[in-house]
Amino acid sequence: MGKTEFVIEPGRQDLVTVRTFDAPREAVFRAMTDPGLIPRWWGPAKYEVRVEEGDIRTGGAWRFLTSGEDGEFNFHGVYHEVSAPDRIVQTFEFEGAPGHVCLETVELEDLGGSTRYRAVSVFQSVEDRDAMVASGMEEGSDEGLERLEELASEIARGA
Amino acid sequence: MGKTEFVIEPGRQDLVTVRTFDAPREAVFRAMTDPGLIPRWWGPAKYEVRVEEGDIRTGGAWRFLTSGEDGEFNFHGVYHEVSAPDRIVQTFEFEGAPGHVCLETVELEDLGGSTRYRAVSVFQSVEDRDAMVASGMEEGSDEGLERLEELASEIARGA
Repeated sequence: MGKTEFVIEPGRQDLVTVRTFDAPREAVFRAMTDPGLIPRWWGPAKYEVRVEEGDIRTGGAWRFLTSGEDGEFNFHGVYHEVSAPDRIVQTFEFEGAPGHVCLETVELEDLGGSTRYRAVSVFQSVEDRDAMVASGMEEGSDEGLERLEELASEIARGA
Repeated sequence: MGKTEFVIEPGRQDLVTVRTFDAPREAVFRAMTDPGLIPRWWGPAKYEVRVEEGDIRTGGAWRFLTSGEDGEFNFHGVYHEVSAPDRIVQTFEFEGAPGHVCLETVELEDLGGSTRYRAVSVFQSVEDRDAMVASGMEEGSDEGLERLEELASEIARGA
């Protein structure tokens, strides 16, 4: 496991993900909200990601299709709020478990060159939260955030 | 308090609202999803409701403005899912407490002429959930659902 910290307390409906990126906040926010950049960081590296819908703004919707050797896994949701440079509130549904929706709030704190990422995901039930954890979410999320950090660093260097 | 049951357990991030309407499911769903009908039931009767945005479909957004003797109170969110005849998943934010968002899932069960309404609202924190309860949510919600039942009965009678 990498630099990502997960707070997953028994019997709760939420999980909290915290990580400090060695990249400035503007670059992290841009990497998260430019639909053309989503395939370069979203989810584990072993999957190819296609942005079928990527209207990343308050009131917009998203649908990302991922495929790899073990199959296709699709996800969708809506953006309650996308506020540069520090806040995204969205819904999230894995289409393999239809009807199970979570609400994710991401906040980016400017630490002066580096960025503190904090995401709170709340689920419709404790069981849903536990199923997400059991699915290997931590490893996939950590890998995605590792790639997000690399991409944001590239953006900041103008690469 | 009326016929609405609230399940609010200490220390949890959710609250559950259950009620049986003496009206058929199709009429309840229509009353909930026709923007022109929202002002007739949404919230306590003492407020006038204006639908500033009422794109009540999967991927749509809503903003309802309410006003009364004690001031103006505005609310907005997005629809993750609107599936006739039985399911709505949406976000909800009271603009008087910006940034505090909840995810609401409403399911309607057909009991053959009457309808079981069940809403699960999950909040970003236990504190947010408790603040919503302390705001008088139960009374306001019960009054809104009372009006929704009356409206759905009218629709079913073709009135």
